[in-house]
Amino acid sequence: MSSSLSPLQKYRLQYLPTIPDALKNMKMLKAIEAKTGLELKKHPSELEISFTTIADFFPLSHRAPFLKFTKGKQALTKPLRVGVVLSGGQAAGGHNVISGIFDALKSLNPASELIGFLNGPSGIIKDQTTEITAPLIEGYRNQGGFDLIGSGRTKIETSEQLKTALEVVLKHKLDGLIIIGGDDSNTNAALLAEYFLARQCETSVVGVPKTIDGDLKNKDIEISFGFDSASKNYSETIGSLMRDVFSAKKYYCFIKLMGRSASHITLECALQTHPNLTFISEEVAAQKSSLKQLVGEVCNLICQRASNGKDYGVVLIPEGLVEFIPEVKCLIVELNGLLAESTPHYAALENLKDDSKKIEYIEKLLSKDSVSCFRSLPKDNKLQLLIGRDSHGNVQVSKIETERMMIEMVKEELYKRTKKGDYQGTFSPLSHFCGYEGRACLPSNFDCQYCYALGMTAVALIKSEATGYICCLSNLTKRVEDWIPGGIPLTSMMAMETRHGTAKPVITKALVDLNGKPFEVFSQQRARWAQNDDYVNPGPTQFFGPEEITDALTLTLKLEAIEKQDKT
Amino acid sequence: MSSSLSPLQKYRLQYLPTIPDALKNMKMLKAIEAKTGLELKKHPSELEISFTTIADFFPLSHRAPFLKFTKGKQALTKPLRVGVVLSGGQAAGGHNVISGIFDALKSLNPASELIGFLNGPSGIIKDQTTEITAPLIEGYRNQGGFDLIGSGRTKIETSEQLKTALEVVLKHKLDGLIIIGGDDSNTNAALLAEYFLARQCETSVVGVPKTIDGDLKNKDIEISFGFDSASKNYSETIGSLMRDVFSAKKYYCFIKLMGRSASHITLECALQTHPNLTFISEEVAAQKSSLKQLVGEVCNLICQRASNGKDYGVVLIPEGLVEFIPEVKCLIVELNGLLAESTPHYAALENLKDDSKKIEYIEKLLSKDSVSCFRSLPKDNKLQLLIGRDSHGNVQVSKIETERMMIEMVKEELYKRTKKGDYQGTFSPLSHFCGYEGRACLPSNFDCQYCYALGMTAVALIKSEATGYICCLSNLTKRVEDWIPGGIPLTSMMAMETRHGTAKPVITKALVDLNGKPFEVFSQQRARWAQNDDYVNPGPTQFFGPEEITDALTLTLKLEAIEKQDKT
Repeated sequence: MSSSLSPLQKYRLQYLPTIPDALKNMKMLKAIEAKTGLELKKHPSELEISFTTIADFFPLSHRAPFLKFTKGKQALTKPLRVGVVLSGGQAAGGHNVISGIFDALKSLNPASELIGFLNGPSGIIKDQTTEITAPLIEGYRNQGGFDLIGSGRTKIETSEQLKTALEVVLKHKLDGLIIIGGDDSNTNAALLAEYFLARQCETSVVGVPKTIDGDLKNKDIEISFGFDSASKNYSETIGSLMRDVFSAKKYYCFIKLMGRSASHITLECALQTHPNLTFISEEVAAQKSSLKQLVGEVCNLICQRASNGKDYGVVLIPEGLVEFIPEVKCLIVELNGLLAESTPHYAALENLKDDSKKIEYIEKLLSKDSVSCFRSLPKDNKLQLLIGRDSHGNVQVSKIETERMMIEMVKEELYKRTKKGDYQGTFSPLSHFCGYEGRACLPSNFDCQYCYALGMTAVALIKSEATGYICCLSNLTKRVEDWIPGGIPLTSMMAMETRHGTAKPVITKALVDLNGKPFEVFSQQRARWAQNDDYVNPGPTQFFGPEEITDALTLTLKLEAIEKQDKT
Repeated sequence: MSSSLSPLQKYRLQYLPTIPDALKNMKMLKAIEAKTGLELKKHPSELEISFTTIADFFPLSHRAPFLKFTKGKQALTKPLRVGVVLSGGQAAGGHNVISGIFDALKSLNPASELIGFLNGPSGIIKDQTTEITAPLIEGYRNQGGFDLIGSGRTKIETSEQLKTALEVVLKHKLDGLIIIGGDDSNTNAALLAEYFLARQCETSVVGVPKTIDGDLKNKDIEISFGFDSASKNYSETIGSLMRDVFSAKKYYCFIKLMGRSASHITLECALQTHPNLTFISEEVAAQKSSLKQLVGEVCNLICQRASNGKDYGVVLIPEGLVEFIPEVKCLIVELNGLLAESTPHYAALENLKDDSKKIEYIEKLLSKDSVSCFRSLPKDNKLQLLIGRDSHGNVQVSKIETERMMIEMVKEELYKRTKKGDYQGTFSPLSHFCGYEGRACLPSNFDCQYCYALGMTAVALIKSEATGYICCLSNLTKRVEDWIPGGIPLTSMMAMETRHGTAKPVITKALVDLNGKPFEVFSQQRARWAQNDDYVNPGPTQFFGPEEITDALTLTLKLEAIEKQDKT
């Protein structure tokens, strides 16, 4: 733990999350099959063609019912032993999930114990643990980061890993194992639950939905934790940059935002701040836009605004944009094939010292479409694609600084338009990346409360001996007191996907729904935002003061709730 | 004006800055020579060799006394007509200076009028104005940005410009002209005041100390406005990035911070957040460090931490760092000489298409020392120096992304150390720039109150017919009620400096004092911060809640106040 706390961090230690009424008496909670309360939908495994396959992978857990809680009789609860692990990238609120678990366990029986597996799932395999005690947890309440027990990206999936995990869990006599993570980590939680069930191990495995990207959600899971804090953090920065752009009236600010697979964050920040142009990766994919078209879209905006005397503006770009452009996707696939380490081309390219020669070499090998896409890239980006490799031996698309690439390509296109007499403005670009600062910031009140309640729900599920579930809280747009805890069978969120040539059950990532309310509201307004300067500055996240400010929900959550209501 | 406001922006409209007792009854205020109250120091013009020269430039205003305010008899005040202009880059609080001016003028006489010159000093020359009315100002109270009247970087300095300014000021029958700006803008305010005096124009010219960089300050002016908000904004980001680094435990984050001439912001943020390594440009210059030494310093830190099993850390870099490294400074001077547009080398370099050829060409022309400095730079930075030119035809040092250059050079050095067996860690660098978002963010309570009081002080000076002054508020570490307003003759802050070959009177930039208290406290602690992880997250700027949080002062201001007290 870092040894100093700022005055605000100290105040935040004292913040008491409101507890949903349904979780107030943990001792009386009892999980029952949800027929009402939680929205009961057809189990996908009953619907999908992949039914047999999902069932193949999860013969024991694939038909688990949706769970809600009811009041049972007050009963003595034996002390529970629970393990918790953080998996994947940071998201604000992780420490509150743990404090929610801790407090719920202790309220059930003060002799209950919580152990933290260190540095992610590898802590399970390596049996590296720390006991989470009351004095320890006190320093982490309502604080950002994952540093109490650390996190990691190791996956428990091989049979050897699963076996070791079972041994460790048995050694620690765990009643429950809580995995706090994103879609991949929760997929692994489901595998672990099934594995344990098959071996008569009674340890419940329960997942908690974490990801700032917001792509782990569905009809029941309204939001993943960390999304609220991150989008508030980024909206503050965007709002301030906008005000600067609007004051200086001479810059175009290209802001890239985190979110590689889904553009929820970008969409939420756009709704909050009203930029002149926002790319949503899912729309780019749906429209099969080319890189040239996107560059053209930016240039059209710039030219139109210039004709109104405005040589400034703000453009939002989701981190994963290029991977959603069909032609870039094809190019990447081709390059990955051509340049696999085993191929002669890999070595040949390595031997060419001159950058231009490397580029020439590869252009000869690419298909016609891919050549033209490759040629349209700025030189630096071409080389990034040829030289870097990620740990899987693939070209490093994530290293492409999309906001800077866009600036280079826009410059070039504007130069052409200037020559043709179609543009007479001055283009001064700036770039900014809303990145890691949004993952470990002080969690918003919403995330503090949501995470704390998620932690309590996880314990309620373990107490009910439910396994293979992910914690769920519904009714999030209502008062915290009215939030409804429940458990969603992880298998119900899965579909078969082909990864590296084999079909695997995975939790489907929730992409931006182009027919959904948040996108609808955005698309209704964006033409106005393009030309007018309707910039809004949400300002820094507030922890004191009017609830309207401190406990504000994301617009995505609000609009999706309206959409849900409209449908029922 | 942007047409939408966030809920927080709306709340901020309602915020009422506390008014210093000394400014509570504007009608009774009377400026008198400050013998007590304000610290009266020897007027530099009486001390310096440059005396005759300063006097040459300011024959009429160079011996103006320091001013403080006292209560005169309550008198009817005639309506005043005042003009206000924003000059230079944005700083949070600018709109509050204007609202302070507006309210003070109206409290003196409701018939008083305030006109804003649009888009900076060019608005004076071009006579572009807007009347600032009560309904207009209402939308800007306690808001960030400079967009109410815009800003600009035009300087009023040629005789023609001065003449036009005089005509415009006379046309508008201005009793006062308030120039809100940094050191350069206030130097120009002094020139304008002198020019007006010499032509019997009775318009008072009064400056207001603005700059987020914090380099416009002295014994009397304790802080420039915008510094407080910007350093809080950046400290929030740094604190969050640190917590992320500390959670992931696998990244080195290199954070560049605004502040080209002085490292006050970097120093303040370091005091707030405790990074592992912080460069202070002024120290680099004093120690005559070479680029290689700085890179070595980073690598030493990385190696030491790696030997303790820590492959992560946070490094702060002030924006202007490279310009303070003596050898880089020399290199730049040589390059500027060699590559002036009139030289044959400029054309020769243009004609070379190949980047490596360009580099070879210039290396032959550089002096021995400069060649070795140039060679040590990463290729991209070499080309940046050869290809780009700023509007004065100079190489664009400011375009060098110091944080990225540092990363490249550190990589190279670590590679060497790895080969020698001196380093066995993994180096995963990230970079971040704390930039324009700190200029136009919502102003902190401190900046809201300070700026409002500065605006009122400006009016008090104009009412007292003082000209060639900069507004001053002393006692800032005390309650706002006890702040002491005054006026500092601008000429007292000046020294002669040779710029472009001619001696000019300029306001001396306040650099970080390496013997001052803030640097002392920093240097006493940095060895500990280097190895321990004493990361602190100040969190987002708060506007509601305990005063300790909402009205916290910068550590720089506090420590300098202690230093002052120790000395007296």
